[in-house]
Amino acid sequence: MKTTQFALPHVVIVGAGFGGLRAARRLARLPVRVTLIDRNNYHLFQPLLYQVATAGVSAADIAYPVRAVLRRQKNARFLLAEVRQVDLLNRRLLTSAGEVSYDYLILAVGGQTHYFGQDGLAAHTFGLKTLADADSIRDHVLTLFERASRESDPNRRRALLTFAVAGGGPSGVEMAGALSELIRLALPRDFPGFDVSEARVLLLEAADYLLPAMPPDLRQAALRVLQRKGVEVRLGARVQSYDGQRIELASGEIIPSRTLIWAAGIRAVELVQNLPVEHAAAGRVRVDPTLQLPGFPEVFVIGDAAYLEDEQGNPLPMVAPVAMQQADAVVENLRRRLDGQSLLAFQYRDPGMLATIGRNQAVARLGRFHLRGFIAWAMWVAVHILQLIGFRNRLVVMINWAWDYFLYERALRLIQTPPQPGRLPQQEAGRLGNG
Amino acid sequence: MKTTQFALPHVVIVGAGFGGLRAARRLARLPVRVTLIDRNNYHLFQPLLYQVATAGVSAADIAYPVRAVLRRQKNARFLLAEVRQVDLLNRRLLTSAGEVSYDYLILAVGGQTHYFGQDGLAAHTFGLKTLADADSIRDHVLTLFERASRESDPNRRRALLTFAVAGGGPSGVEMAGALSELIRLALPRDFPGFDVSEARVLLLEAADYLLPAMPPDLRQAALRVLQRKGVEVRLGARVQSYDGQRIELASGEIIPSRTLIWAAGIRAVELVQNLPVEHAAAGRVRVDPTLQLPGFPEVFVIGDAAYLEDEQGNPLPMVAPVAMQQADAVVENLRRRLDGQSLLAFQYRDPGMLATIGRNQAVARLGRFHLRGFIAWAMWVAVHILQLIGFRNRLVVMINWAWDYFLYERALRLIQTPPQPGRLPQQEAGRLGNG
Repeated sequence: MKTTQFALPHVVIVGAGFGGLRAARRLARLPVRVTLIDRNNYHLFQPLLYQVATAGVSAADIAYPVRAVLRRQKNARFLLAEVRQVDLLNRRLLTSAGEVSYDYLILAVGGQTHYFGQDGLAAHTFGLKTLADADSIRDHVLTLFERASRESDPNRRRALLTFAVAGGGPSGVEMAGALSELIRLALPRDFPGFDVSEARVLLLEAADYLLPAMPPDLRQAALRVLQRKGVEVRLGARVQSYDGQRIELASGEIIPSRTLIWAAGIRAVELVQNLPVEHAAAGRVRVDPTLQLPGFPEVFVIGDAAYLEDEQGNPLPMVAPVAMQQADAVVENLRRRLDGQSLLAFQYRDPGMLATIGRNQAVARLGRFHLRGFIAWAMWVAVHILQLIGFRNRLVVMINWAWDYFLYERALRLIQTPPQPGRLPQQEAGRLGNG
Repeated sequence: MKTTQFALPHVVIVGAGFGGLRAARRLARLPVRVTLIDRNNYHLFQPLLYQVATAGVSAADIAYPVRAVLRRQKNARFLLAEVRQVDLLNRRLLTSAGEVSYDYLILAVGGQTHYFGQDGLAAHTFGLKTLADADSIRDHVLTLFERASRESDPNRRRALLTFAVAGGGPSGVEMAGALSELIRLALPRDFPGFDVSEARVLLLEAADYLLPAMPPDLRQAALRVLQRKGVEVRLGARVQSYDGQRIELASGEIIPSRTLIWAAGIRAVELVQNLPVEHAAAGRVRVDPTLQLPGFPEVFVIGDAAYLEDEQGNPLPMVAPVAMQQADAVVENLRRRLDGQSLLAFQYRDPGMLATIGRNQAVARLGRFHLRGFIAWAMWVAVHILQLIGFRNRLVVMINWAWDYFLYERALRLIQTPPQPGRLPQQEAGRLGNG
């Protein structure tokens, strides 16, 4: 740190997700020092995590080193650390790399998987928020196929090949669609003699419809596409418990399954839940319309961690466009504060919503327009590839997708780590060979 | 398995490395049933492991699913399992997936890191044999750079930035060269203010020369290139012990270092060492010139697991060309045996040897020709990219390399897993920020 910069206000940003990284870059123009803190050294393009989980792209394709993003920004530095506590009164953070003081703080820490108090679910389900989650799902699914290929008992084989996804929002819909295609299109080529009809993909949703943020006609369209792709969509199906072997629904129904991917909810991380301020649902903190923390005007909270309502009184959704627009708003408000101007209230401009369902289908709401089918899917591909940071990543992801699209091939279906103990029952000794 | 095949002899191959996979494919033409067993579901292109370790390519670029390779081969199937014991008398294998009987067995299980009885070394060093090894090294090196960037004590910073490689064979030379380039060319762009002269790469070799399989002029050339690239080559330096903090040499010298990559030896895996037959150095089993296990003519051993001497009485090296030529020889001998002909003795045709040293330097021995410098490097790139199985992998690796070569950029420098406990000392609490 050069001495000439010491007089500049120190803005600390926690979280290098969509909101935090955008805020850091936008702050290049302001007379401040910026420290961006994240526990990972990469920015993760979360919308494509389900593609890593279903062997469509590899982890490196959707993650980009934060230092490479900030390299040319002279007023910013990166700190790899876990933030353990926010000391609001003393304006400092306690982190795994020591204390960090701030003049202004932007909390952009995102969310984590929400089990709604059913902690038993956390032990046996797969989340879908981190690279490790996605790698685990891929390894697990591929390992189950290997197990099933040498299992002679039909009931056990069926349980091994029953893959359940809980949650009918965009993540659950995308995951179920991609999983069904992996199973129906890619894996049968690898497992000769494999009977696809033995494998099931279940999408379990507690409500009576999918994609709550979509208009009814697109919800219906998504449902039909999923069913056409072989996904068993179960509406009104609330998961009661799961022990790694059997899913119990609130109705009392039991579904034997070795796989439950939990995409049913997101809540604020502990760091945010522990803040001594007023919280809303899912542990989000209520912020002022200016995105400031009430009582702490030097602290801004954005993205999944912040609770704010739109003009109709609906909570702003936990999606990337909200976080990125809030990042822009916070940087503008910081500029105003440094210039002695009054701050502006945040206004969300809803850009619409896209959800993809497999290789060539999607539903999209764009203002007044409702799109579905191939055109919506093509738009989804274009939007996501363009948003991916880094030209090389874009190129590699495009090659992988083009390859996959035209050849139904998945070169990435590697089991990189052995299955976790406890996740699978001990192997039954079978007899193979001359038999 | 179709009933018409039941009468066909069952050939079981253990190991999907260079030898095992080649044997499986060559057996397509013989009237046999083939079962290929590996504990991983992929073939690993080991010569490029050091590139994964130094963030040059990602794991998926150098691994290819075995099932994709065997997909069109009707007489072959794949079994994902760990082989725990070979029951030679009863002609069966005990595996994690049950028993597997064989009529003929081809053991192609490769080697593992050899610590020469110094088991203490295994606990704190990094091997370089598996994808997990390579991922661990990359995560570790990048994490140390993050730590060093916020460490104010010069001695501790120096220990964090001292990277040692033990072993002056091709693996050690390649690893040290690539590590030095990662540190000198790529990372300084990510860590502004980082003083490259604080970082050291040490190559420790017990003998008085590098690359024992190379002629003396190329050993000298490799040494000079490494030194020019900033690698401190220490000849006559035998590692005595390492506790994760300090490397002790046989001379009594202590080198404080948080990283020791062990590329100093390969030995046969336990499965081979436990065979009740005569063993040679490094636990390899002595095989007949026909590659059969003495006393068990239905068992063939190839590659790193087999000990055989050339006409001059030198042991055949543990390299891919030996394994692949032996695979061809075993398949030919199997054909002869099925046809009632006498078996042939294996003859190794030495294709030469290549070792690369960073971005644009290599040494190569090709028959009478000794090559060095850029031309040898270009040949190395061509040979390796052509050998990589799968066109997509080739394309992606080429893009990564071209990108890296022209832009000194490493998009893959992601820390994917948190550092292992014990590997690094507990973080000292520092004070950052306005301080």
